[in-house]
Amino acid sequence: MWKRGKFFAIVGTLQVAFVILFAVLGDYDEQGDAVKSSHRREHGEHEEYELPKLYPMFADVHVMIFVGFGFLMTFLRRYGYSSIGLNLLVAAFTCQWHTIVFGMISSKTFGYFTVGIESLLTADFACAAVLISMGAVLGKTSPLQLIVMILFEIVIFVANEYVTVTLLQIADIGGSVVVHSFGAYFGLAVARMIFKKDVLKSSKEGSVYHSDLFSMIGTIFLWIFWPSFNSALAEEDGQSRAVINTYYAIAASTVAVFAVSSLLNKKSSFDMVAVQNATLAGGVAVGTTANMVIYPYGAVIIGIVAGSLSTVGYQFLTPFLNEKAGFHDTCGVNNLHGMPGLLAGIAGAVVAALATPEKYGDSLYKLYPAMASSNSTLGNTSEVNIEVGRTPIEQGGYQMAAVCVTLAFAIVGGCVTGLILRLPIWDEPKGGELFDDEPNWSVSEETNALIDANDQNEAVLTIDYKKKEITNAV
Amino acid sequence: MWKRGKFFAIVGTLQVAFVILFAVLGDYDEQGDAVKSSHRREHGEHEEYELPKLYPMFADVHVMIFVGFGFLMTFLRRYGYSSIGLNLLVAAFTCQWHTIVFGMISSKTFGYFTVGIESLLTADFACAAVLISMGAVLGKTSPLQLIVMILFEIVIFVANEYVTVTLLQIADIGGSVVVHSFGAYFGLAVARMIFKKDVLKSSKEGSVYHSDLFSMIGTIFLWIFWPSFNSALAEEDGQSRAVINTYYAIAASTVAVFAVSSLLNKKSSFDMVAVQNATLAGGVAVGTTANMVIYPYGAVIIGIVAGSLSTVGYQFLTPFLNEKAGFHDTCGVNNLHGMPGLLAGIAGAVVAALATPEKYGDSLYKLYPAMASSNSTLGNTSEVNIEVGRTPIEQGGYQMAAVCVTLAFAIVGGCVTGLILRLPIWDEPKGGELFDDEPNWSVSEETNALIDANDQNEAVLTIDYKKKEITNAV
Amino acid sequence: MWKRGKFFAIVGTLQVAFVILFAVLGDYDEQGDAVKSSHRREHGEHEEYELPKLYPMFADVHVMIFVGFGFLMTFLRRYGYSSIGLNLLVAAFTCQWHTIVFGMISSKTFGYFTVGIESLLTADFACAAVLISMGAVLGKTSPLQLIVMILFEIVIFVANEYVTVTLLQIADIGGSVVVHSFGAYFGLAVARMIFKKDVLKSSKEGSVYHSDLFSMIGTIFLWIFWPSFNSALAEEDGQSRAVINTYYAIAASTVAVFAVSSLLNKKSSFDMVAVQNATLAGGVAVGTTANMVIYPYGAVIIGIVAGSLSTVGYQFLTPFLNEKAGFHDTCGVNNLHGMPGLLAGIAGAVVAALATPEKYGDSLYKLYPAMASSNSTLGNTSEVNIEVGRTPIEQGGYQMAAVCVTLAFAIVGGCVTGLILRLPIWDEPKGGELFDDEPNWSVSEETNALIDANDQNEAVLTIDYKKKEITNAV
Repeated sequence: MWKRGKFFAIVGTLQVAFVILFAVLGDYDEQGDAVKSSHRREHGEHEEYELPKLYPMFADVHVMIFVGFGFLMTFLRRYGYSSIGLNLLVAAFTCQWHTIVFGMISSKTFGYFTVGIESLLTADFACAAVLISMGAVLGKTSPLQLIVMILFEIVIFVANEYVTVTLLQIADIGGSVVVHSFGAYFGLAVARMIFKKDVLKSSKEGSVYHSDLFSMIGTIFLWIFWPSFNSALAEEDGQSRAVINTYYAIAASTVAVFAVSSLLNKKSSFDMVAVQNATLAGGVAVGTTANMVIYPYGAVIIGIVAGSLSTVGYQFLTPFLNEKAGFHDTCGVNNLHGMPGLLAGIAGAVVAALATPEKYGDSLYKLYPAMASSNSTLGNTSEVNIEVGRTPIEQGGYQMAAVCVTLAFAIVGGCVTGLILRLPIWDEPKGGELFDDEPNWSVSEETNALIDANDQNEAVLTIDYKKKEITNAV
Repeated sequence: MWKRGKFFAIVGTLQVAFVILFAVLGDYDEQGDAVKSSHRREHGEHEEYELPKLYPMFADVHVMIFVGFGFLMTFLRRYGYSSIGLNLLVAAFTCQWHTIVFGMISSKTFGYFTVGIESLLTADFACAAVLISMGAVLGKTSPLQLIVMILFEIVIFVANEYVTVTLLQIADIGGSVVVHSFGAYFGLAVARMIFKKDVLKSSKEGSVYHSDLFSMIGTIFLWIFWPSFNSALAEEDGQSRAVINTYYAIAASTVAVFAVSSLLNKKSSFDMVAVQNATLAGGVAVGTTANMVIYPYGAVIIGIVAGSLSTVGYQFLTPFLNEKAGFHDTCGVNNLHGMPGLLAGIAGAVVAALATPEKYGDSLYKLYPAMASSNSTLGNTSEVNIEVGRTPIEQGGYQMAAVCVTLAFAIVGGCVTGLILRLPIWDEPKGGELFDDEPNWSVSEETNALIDANDQNEAVLTIDYKKKEITNAV
Repeated sequence: MWKRGKFFAIVGTLQVAFVILFAVLGDYDEQGDAVKSSHRREHGEHEEYELPKLYPMFADVHVMIFVGFGFLMTFLRRYGYSSIGLNLLVAAFTCQWHTIVFGMISSKTFGYFTVGIESLLTADFACAAVLISMGAVLGKTSPLQLIVMILFEIVIFVANEYVTVTLLQIADIGGSVVVHSFGAYFGLAVARMIFKKDVLKSSKEGSVYHSDLFSMIGTIFLWIFWPSFNSALAEEDGQSRAVINTYYAIAASTVAVFAVSSLLNKKSSFDMVAVQNATLAGGVAVGTTANMVIYPYGAVIIGIVAGSLSTVGYQFLTPFLNEKAGFHDTCGVNNLHGMPGLLAGIAGAVVAALATPEKYGDSLYKLYPAMASSNSTLGNTSEVNIEVGRTPIEQGGYQMAAVCVTLAFAIVGGCVTGLILRLPIWDEPKGGELFDDEPNWSVSEETNALIDANDQNEAVLTIDYKKKEITNAV
């Protein structure tokens, strides 16, 4: 009885708390304020509305979060309802919670905050981080555990972003470090904490033909809109470069995945898991430097390295992590988000260290504000108070430092969160409940029977199939 | 023989009639007129083209109509071809017919009309109303019946829109009243008229695992682009608010659905049907007030109420309506569009009654043109001919009146249309043809056999499964 | 052993060659150049950035290429991994190769080229041509053969585009001639060259219920975004017309397909293959004239003719081509892209021949630059050097000539490419490997067994089903 009301009580209470926090602290920003807008119109101040400019790319990112991540996770044959359904729940919960936490932390007026199209976009970015972490623990956590994870992860995520982006002033336009690496290593830390041996014994962790096709819906929509993800917050020439670089990096990583995956296979075949995931690694790896002057060939090189690395990771690293090291990375987020995110961080440091005014003109100080000396921002100015900006090498150092800070936040935060998730009050799935929709969903008996039947058929027929093979061989 | 040519003869004739009507009456609007555009360019009148501004949101709505509604209906296990295929046919037919009917009715020049990006968008909105109605009668109507339904529904839809939006001057930016409520209650009235007992006996009305996942493609795309639906026709600060409010309302309704649905279930599980549908209720319920100053917390409250109401509706109201009351609402449109649309209408009246110049500035008169006194629109003006605009309370009254008018149009119109659909000349499906693709599609014998096999398996295995359960229990 | 490394060696080498070519020859265009942008900002030259204007439609086209074409091809029941996976590989490879080839050929500076949002869009268009060709040979070619096909096809595609668009100065805004016809007839020529009798014996060429629904994902996304495809490169009033005309043409072709398909069927049913493909024919057929003054009724007529023609083609022409004529057009690209593309070409010639300044104003010379006399482009000008532009009839002749040139390039190029693909070194699939994922993918034994089981069930149950039918009949 207590179990029955538990999810409702906890999540319902939190949702009501959101209402209160929004009511007390939240408001529309300048552009959504009716009175201020009226005032501007009356005084002939023709302000440019940001929404029409930003909305198309926001919508693309929205597709990535809800369709992309959602369907990507449906590869599990018996966990399709949960993958797509809980993805929706998690993201819908996260985007509210992030608005509140981020709003309060970045508030300059005692916690009061405003929302606008840009804050919706950053909330979606935060969803990406949480969904990446969810990928690492997919099939092994209850809905309640995911809700608790969000509560902690978002606070830590916002703190890390504040330290790296605001204090250390690093450039990370596509969030490869602060979103992808963070989400992946936070998730892996949680996965390590909640690891149980029976995860390895489950027979349900696998895909079937149709579930792999559903998963490709996710892959392709993520693939397509990655240029939007990496360029949504960039501007002018930087935005052009972000689109171009991401387009070529992700194309190159795709070709690399097919090439490397055929090399690694005995029959020279492609690997579906690698194609579903590693093809996207180029988009992650180019994320930090997407708006920089890396030239198309630089983007292609980053893509090739990322795609190859990720494919090799799926083949060799994941089995080791899953079976020996006591991680168990259901979706392989280390290969798709973790390592490519670190690669992006390193590339970001190198590119920053090589950035010069000759190569960038004054764009340099828009892209790396900390490199501007105070007079360069003030124009032709007084002699006093000249503060010299960072050198390229220094900026590179800060970029590297941010990677380390992010790893520290992610791993420590993930471990603490994981420990809390181990409390025996969150209805954690066990044994036969792992990787199975049944504990979460009231599916009709017929559907259950049908799935069971398929599984039985499968088992029986695998034997038949092998017999036949033997017969054929004889 | 007559049957064979019937669909071709009727639909072919109508499509040729469309050609004639377009040829006689239709033209491009100012922005698509080559001669006028040339003229403007020559005289240096740099007109702003609407298309690039409106097109991205139009494209999103287009996705909702064809992917969203189409796949949402594929949950029926044996009606997938029809769901997605007839959705395409119905929308393709409707968008032409609406252009003509709306064009002629709103014409100021004896029936001549022009088309442009905004008319394409309103045609897509009309498709939404028709597809909602189709959801109520899904699996129980022949393609011909759907075509006949469109012919009547569009005329009544346009008439209702004229009365409520043009004459009563109500605000309903997302069309929750004039599109969603109208479509739902029109469809339910038709469903009541064509109700037959054998609908309740059909064994084919149900989903299987994969059909539920296909349905989620529809759900998610509708979910994602709902902010575009509610804000496409809004402007400036109103558009910002429409996006923000819809984003938070639909997120909150999603969380509410999961919470309430777990409370209502004995095993504390989530319900797939509720997740597929009720999660969207927040988008409907906030539609009328999306561009108003309801603040983010207002949007969240509307979302919570809508999601909860819709979930409860699926659990308790739908079984009653389907089995006792002689409605039979295949897709549960009352829960997703009907009740949330009414909720939107009531919220619209309350928000209007509370609208003051202090809260809105001069935006008030853009949002509620009937509240403007004639001098407020004329600026600093003569003393004569001051006509006092509506008070907030009056506007609220008009908003409520529009809800009632819409219900009347929908129910009376739906009943009349339903009676016509009962004429025994439209090849209405009966008995085993209900909820089945076979009468509509030439599927290969193999496919039929395979589906049959699955059904047999299912039946057999349900028994096996129950036996096993009993055995396990013993 | 050699086989194992072959794909990696060839594709890896090509991808590295791309890096080198990009490094030596490629750069960002003006809008992505950081130094030039800085310079413009300093000098207060407020250039309008193209990206925000072009990106939304580019993103739509991107969806068509990767989701649309990819899922459209998943109708084959055992070739789903390859359809969606190789679609991704082919497009990712093509978009790089096209950038290089097109960049070098259209370069005015000894092969050096720049990339920007418009070149990304044209690269996506080139992907469409290649994927259309791939549709003709789907299931009958190895990944290596596809890579080799791309290498040749892109060079020939760029050459044909140069001759028709640059030299002959034809108007073909949606690329119906230079993309769709070209891709279709190139692909058919290749298919004829590599034709083998065992293709006709394969039992795997067919769809199942779910694979048809996956295919509809592709259909619908192509359908929705066709207005973007036809209008992305159009401007101002021409862009408005392109959107409107495509919207109505594709809607009308959809209605026509349902009507004609029910007429052709004995039981008056619809045909799934026609609905998946022929519904799109209206988008192709209106592509060449989309931005012209054809009026909505003209678009509707083109749509009706295209949809009907395409449906008839699927019913009567494809079986003949496949079984008697030694073509074997897996996806029926002749019906969807070939014939509608030719229809577009003819419509383009007729519309050009009827184009007059009275109908177009000065827009005429923007739409058909070759019709401008040199003084009309120079404005009020000197008497010397007046070169008279083409007459409408002449322009119509050039349009027709371009259709013939394109057919010649496609057929000759396709034949040569097909001969090269017949070299016994590309691991061409044979016998049981046709239309089967197994040679290309390492799928788990369980998945194979399951597919096999379904096939067995299907065979057994087809018999059962027929027995039952006989029993029922008796």
